[in-house]
Amino acid sequence: MTDLTFGLIGTGFMGKAHAIALKAAPTVFSLPALPVCELLAEVDDEYAACKARELGFDRSTGDWKSLVTDPHVDVVDICAPNFLHKEMALAAIAAGKHVYTEKPLALCAADAQMMVEAAEAAGVKTLVGFNYIRNSATQLAREIIASGELGELIHFRGRHNEDYLADPAKPLDWHSRRGTAGAGALGDVGSHILNMAEYLTGQRIQEVVGQLQTVIPTRPLADGSGGLGEVENDDQAQALLRFDGGLIGNVETSRVATGRKMGLAYTVTGTKGSIVFDQERMSELQLYKCEGPEGRQGFRTLLMGPEHPDYAAFSPAPGHGLGYNDQKIIEIRDLIEGIVSGRPLYPDFREAWRVNRMIDAIEASHAQGRWVPV
Amino acid sequence: MTDLTFGLIGTGFMGKAHAIALKAAPTVFSLPALPVCELLAEVDDEYAACKARELGFDRSTGDWKSLVTDPHVDVVDICAPNFLHKEMALAAIAAGKHVYTEKPLALCAADAQMMVEAAEAAGVKTLVGFNYIRNSATQLAREIIASGELGELIHFRGRHNEDYLADPAKPLDWHSRRGTAGAGALGDVGSHILNMAEYLTGQRIQEVVGQLQTVIPTRPLADGSGGLGEVENDDQAQALLRFDGGLIGNVETSRVATGRKMGLAYTVTGTKGSIVFDQERMSELQLYKCEGPEGRQGFRTLLMGPEHPDYAAFSPAPGHGLGYNDQKIIEIRDLIEGIVSGRPLYPDFREAWRVNRMIDAIEASHAQGRWVPV
Amino acid sequence: MTDLTFGLIGTGFMGKAHAIALKAAPTVFSLPALPVCELLAEVDDEYAACKARELGFDRSTGDWKSLVTDPHVDVVDICAPNFLHKEMALAAIAAGKHVYTEKPLALCAADAQMMVEAAEAAGVKTLVGFNYIRNSATQLAREIIASGELGELIHFRGRHNEDYLADPAKPLDWHSRRGTAGAGALGDVGSHILNMAEYLTGQRIQEVVGQLQTVIPTRPLADGSGGLGEVENDDQAQALLRFDGGLIGNVETSRVATGRKMGLAYTVTGTKGSIVFDQERMSELQLYKCEGPEGRQGFRTLLMGPEHPDYAAFSPAPGHGLGYNDQKIIEIRDLIEGIVSGRPLYPDFREAWRVNRMIDAIEASHAQGRWVPV
Amino acid sequence: MTDLTFGLIGTGFMGKAHAIALKAAPTVFSLPALPVCELLAEVDDEYAACKARELGFDRSTGDWKSLVTDPHVDVVDICAPNFLHKEMALAAIAAGKHVYTEKPLALCAADAQMMVEAAEAAGVKTLVGFNYIRNSATQLAREIIASGELGELIHFRGRHNEDYLADPAKPLDWHSRRGTAGAGALGDVGSHILNMAEYLTGQRIQEVVGQLQTVIPTRPLADGSGGLGEVENDDQAQALLRFDGGLIGNVETSRVATGRKMGLAYTVTGTKGSIVFDQERMSELQLYKCEGPEGRQGFRTLLMGPEHPDYAAFSPAPGHGLGYNDQKIIEIRDLIEGIVSGRPLYPDFREAWRVNRMIDAIEASHAQGRWVPV
Repeated sequence: MTDLTFGLIGTGFMGKAHAIALKAAPTVFSLPALPVCELLAEVDDEYAACKARELGFDRSTGDWKSLVTDPHVDVVDICAPNFLHKEMALAAIAAGKHVYTEKPLALCAADAQMMVEAAEAAGVKTLVGFNYIRNSATQLAREIIASGELGELIHFRGRHNEDYLADPAKPLDWHSRRGTAGAGALGDVGSHILNMAEYLTGQRIQEVVGQLQTVIPTRPLADGSGGLGEVENDDQAQALLRFDGGLIGNVETSRVATGRKMGLAYTVTGTKGSIVFDQERMSELQLYKCEGPEGRQGFRTLLMGPEHPDYAAFSPAPGHGLGYNDQKIIEIRDLIEGIVSGRPLYPDFREAWRVNRMIDAIEASHAQGRWVPV
Repeated sequence: MTDLTFGLIGTGFMGKAHAIALKAAPTVFSLPALPVCELLAEVDDEYAACKARELGFDRSTGDWKSLVTDPHVDVVDICAPNFLHKEMALAAIAAGKHVYTEKPLALCAADAQMMVEAAEAAGVKTLVGFNYIRNSATQLAREIIASGELGELIHFRGRHNEDYLADPAKPLDWHSRRGTAGAGALGDVGSHILNMAEYLTGQRIQEVVGQLQTVIPTRPLADGSGGLGEVENDDQAQALLRFDGGLIGNVETSRVATGRKMGLAYTVTGTKGSIVFDQERMSELQLYKCEGPEGRQGFRTLLMGPEHPDYAAFSPAPGHGLGYNDQKIIEIRDLIEGIVSGRPLYPDFREAWRVNRMIDAIEASHAQGRWVPV
Repeated sequence: MTDLTFGLIGTGFMGKAHAIALKAAPTVFSLPALPVCELLAEVDDEYAACKARELGFDRSTGDWKSLVTDPHVDVVDICAPNFLHKEMALAAIAAGKHVYTEKPLALCAADAQMMVEAAEAAGVKTLVGFNYIRNSATQLAREIIASGELGELIHFRGRHNEDYLADPAKPLDWHSRRGTAGAGALGDVGSHILNMAEYLTGQRIQEVVGQLQTVIPTRPLADGSGGLGEVENDDQAQALLRFDGGLIGNVETSRVATGRKMGLAYTVTGTKGSIVFDQERMSELQLYKCEGPEGRQGFRTLLMGPEHPDYAAFSPAPGHGLGYNDQKIIEIRDLIEGIVSGRPLYPDFREAWRVNRMIDAIEASHAQGRWVPV
Repeated sequence: MTDLTFGLIGTGFMGKAHAIALKAAPTVFSLPALPVCELLAEVDDEYAACKARELGFDRSTGDWKSLVTDPHVDVVDICAPNFLHKEMALAAIAAGKHVYTEKPLALCAADAQMMVEAAEAAGVKTLVGFNYIRNSATQLAREIIASGELGELIHFRGRHNEDYLADPAKPLDWHSRRGTAGAGALGDVGSHILNMAEYLTGQRIQEVVGQLQTVIPTRPLADGSGGLGEVENDDQAQALLRFDGGLIGNVETSRVATGRKMGLAYTVTGTKGSIVFDQERMSELQLYKCEGPEGRQGFRTLLMGPEHPDYAAFSPAPGHGLGYNDQKIIEIRDLIEGIVSGRPLYPDFREAWRVNRMIDAIEASHAQGRWVPV
């Protein structure tokens, strides 16, 4: 079996999750190439070396620019903050590397477009880490929809709400700055549910009307000065949606939704049934079908099991449960298979660009008070 | 104790629910006046007599016009289809009767306004049957919000989805005709969640942007001819909301939401906590509060009990559960207390008129593709 | 329509619930006789008169003995504390009255037997208020089991846990005295789940091995003296069960189960499916059936609707929910139909005697440390 | 950092789970020694070589006996069927290896005792894979109990029910043979809940009264002959429990519980609160505490997060969910830390021997119809 070498940039929440998945993936799945944890970049040499030991990478560097051009790196894996995605990805593409990056792809659609064009011109493979679509239950939801089990789709309701910035005493950080994060909740967690809406339904969002709100307008500066800094993007947002297949729907997103920890949830309604999912119970899917005798119909709780997508690789026994990091393991599997086979990856930069365009459209709609095409 | 005599028009779903509540209310609650089931009107004398025996009314008539002017009737209770509300209510008001009517008040805001003006000019009491706001859990939700336990409100999400017209083989009836029902799902079940939004939050909806859809454009004619008739109003609708206190939110409503039987549900998020409610589990309220030690916070399932609004009258023991008809018993109690005391009733015609205006605004917004004030 | 006159003894929790049901039943159901609230007995004349006004009874008395012999009373309805059931029922039977009494029937099986024999000798009708078996979801559970949908039954798990005596500061009252209550949790709430076990499964409990425990051995005396009195019966109990059809199972009961308000719950497992029910969500039944495609099986949440037992009389719309008192309305309907038709009533005194024998057997088993036949 | 080399015997469900965990553990946790996948044994050389490639082991063998004496193996990791545990463990102990084995430890308490004595005489470390006790929510449950938050414990209810043998057409395999499995459901999944009962409560089970049942007495022979073979052990079992601290409780276990996939669940009730857990929702714990204002008490759903045991190593964000294999990663961490530090491991062979004694006691009690000491 051939190797596929990874250069990881960034070792926060996402960087560690990628590292765990790279280590575990070959044991969980039978892969066409073995992922190798080759090189790790962090903010300086010392920290990088420390993190490389911790996460099991062979080499390390304090300079991400040397990573993206390193001849022994096949795939550049970007887990740095959003505002760095563009520069890093463009450099990696210029060096002919495949690029695997966290979401959102870019701070705005124009940046995303530049990245798409560069990647396509270079002929490298790209993948963006919308990992929740890899979850077994969500893959199953898509299968159920695609197979027509729900009939014709008539409504999509989605949300991705969390409360990680609900506390107004939390200091201002990069999440709340336009220049480092782009959109706020809408870009950070909202991007997941916007991508999910198209992934699940197989339809394209054509038009939106949206609304954004900054609930906590200022936050303490992180410098401990006692001063306040302005929050420059949305704490919560919502939109109505028109899809190209006639479907209508809505989405909500928030980073100040008190009580919601991993509040990605959706309800997809069709003419013959519907499904309900909540990522806080990620190994369950609720399914209703208009069939069977009167008085015996109801939402069924499907517990994920080996007959569902990608579950069997983790356990042959049903109901045993997948976790957050397992989604990343599946994502790594898809990435490696795509690179080795040359088949299209989903969602690649082009697909993720759509998400940036939806975000921009919701922002434009908010400013204009009317429906705006994506 | 004095008596308060009721004249009931209509004995379908709602008429029977009113009759049950009129009979049970004096035993459940200590009332300032005893409701008397005096007179019942139905489509003809014979059916009226039969129904009067069944539902325990003293007298009956096949002519509702004689009921509204009957000297022994204090309160005219209108459970006839929506399109008859206006004529019946105006006649009852003209005869100086108090009027208790089912929702929605009228087919459009203009009709509702005429009814408000007539009632206020005549000085009679009015009440509209938005019964879900009487449920103990929903009264509790309002108390929690009003007391500031959730901090400042930042988001309202509401829906009232059912699937009573999900089956396309169901023949066309008055629900789907503009002239008999006005709006479709939006008027029928949507009116509940629109009223609920203001009841719960204590804020007024100022502006909406909405979308309506007729999912099943034609239905079999009820005459058995095999022909098809046009569905003239919405099967589903949704809107974004701006409240006058700064709150934002959204609502959804449907009569074709496969799997939903009594899908009135809401989530109200504040800066210090949030509540989640689903009428399909009507005796539970989920409450999250940002308090207590780290690692011990979570949504609590409050089971209704005697310490919650109006529960103790039904049972001294917690968790024993209220049912749909119990909400109507509470509504009757409120009606009688309001009439006897002269204190304002909620929601009266003026309040229900607001709901008609919201419905009209959502329809206008749909036509115009932009935000519309209520 | 003929009348059936009721004489009610006792107006606490249960007395009021009976009164509400007597008033509402004729409107909910089409009955073969009209229940009349004829006479009410309480501890003295004044209180009785007050309660009669409140609950809508025509006459009142401070002497229950005059009630049971009153010539205008057809049915004696006993809602007095457990220790009075025997004397009152025997007096009522001696006067030729039908007897409707709350559970448990008696303080011990010997007393119950005496009551059975008296009632059967006199030829009067009897009914004991195990009202939870009237709930639509539980009637449905029984139908599903009886129809063979679950295959052959292989396991029954039941519990009825509450926490009404969990607070050790709660003063000693009749519940905790052997002479007034008989068994403790086992008699009070445990009696429900023991009856339920046989009702649901259609099998007889043949043998038990059980265990009782008094968790809070002393409680403050109610006289405010600051003294402590001994708790003379069980706070919690549990047993394994052998049924005559080969089924095995277990039951638990408690009055000190912190957090449980109406914790009657059961799981019935068969070879082809299983059902799960919790009275805290009394209008839902979870149903699993071993059928349909792989990957689409799961517990279904059936929301009660008009196609389920007795629901339609309360509402024609599914999912609207029954409440605690609605169970009593169904019980009253069954009582009246049984008396008028002469058909057997379930559970009558003979059936309730079984429950007393089960309780006695569990107590004996606890003392002897071995299986004991019922 | 030093290495700790593993020799894995068996590559079925459990063998693969161990391999995944060995690979991922060093990235998830900061470990005192690096686990090395040194040697893998399977039924023959070829299959072993194939599985070693698949699971990432350096070497392989078709002879487990050579593995247990291999000089480069520090820890023998036994994932072979139950009946082989004893022989393999004794050989590994004789070779001075630490032993990590799946549960149940042995087919009967006598065998387990022999293994305990050998291990203790040899001074090797042992660990038995009762992995569900590593789950964050269950560790949290134990912390809550140990801290006294629930007050004094008064009741334990546990079950581990699955339906993997519910289908009577499933051929006879080693699970159903006394000589290869020992007890049936009781040994296989029941062992988990028996260990869990003591782990959670910190009390020892002193006495049991139990009942076993073989629901499906014969199954098709696996040889395809069409013949039937006898099921030699229990399909389901249940017992009442007496703990040494005064606590009472009960357990249930089944392999034929239709609909239950991963039905390990428990309710622990104390005088000041209670907890409810279901492994099918493994990242949630329900907590009730008798505190706070009247009307605001209810079971809280705690979603696991970084403030809970071992969660932060997997994700810094709450509610993101652990999966089945994550429990094994924690188990591996505990094993390595115990071996390197020399501190006691839980549950070691001595502790697992207790589980075998409980199983034997329940079987003896079933035969004798009375309470039996453990």
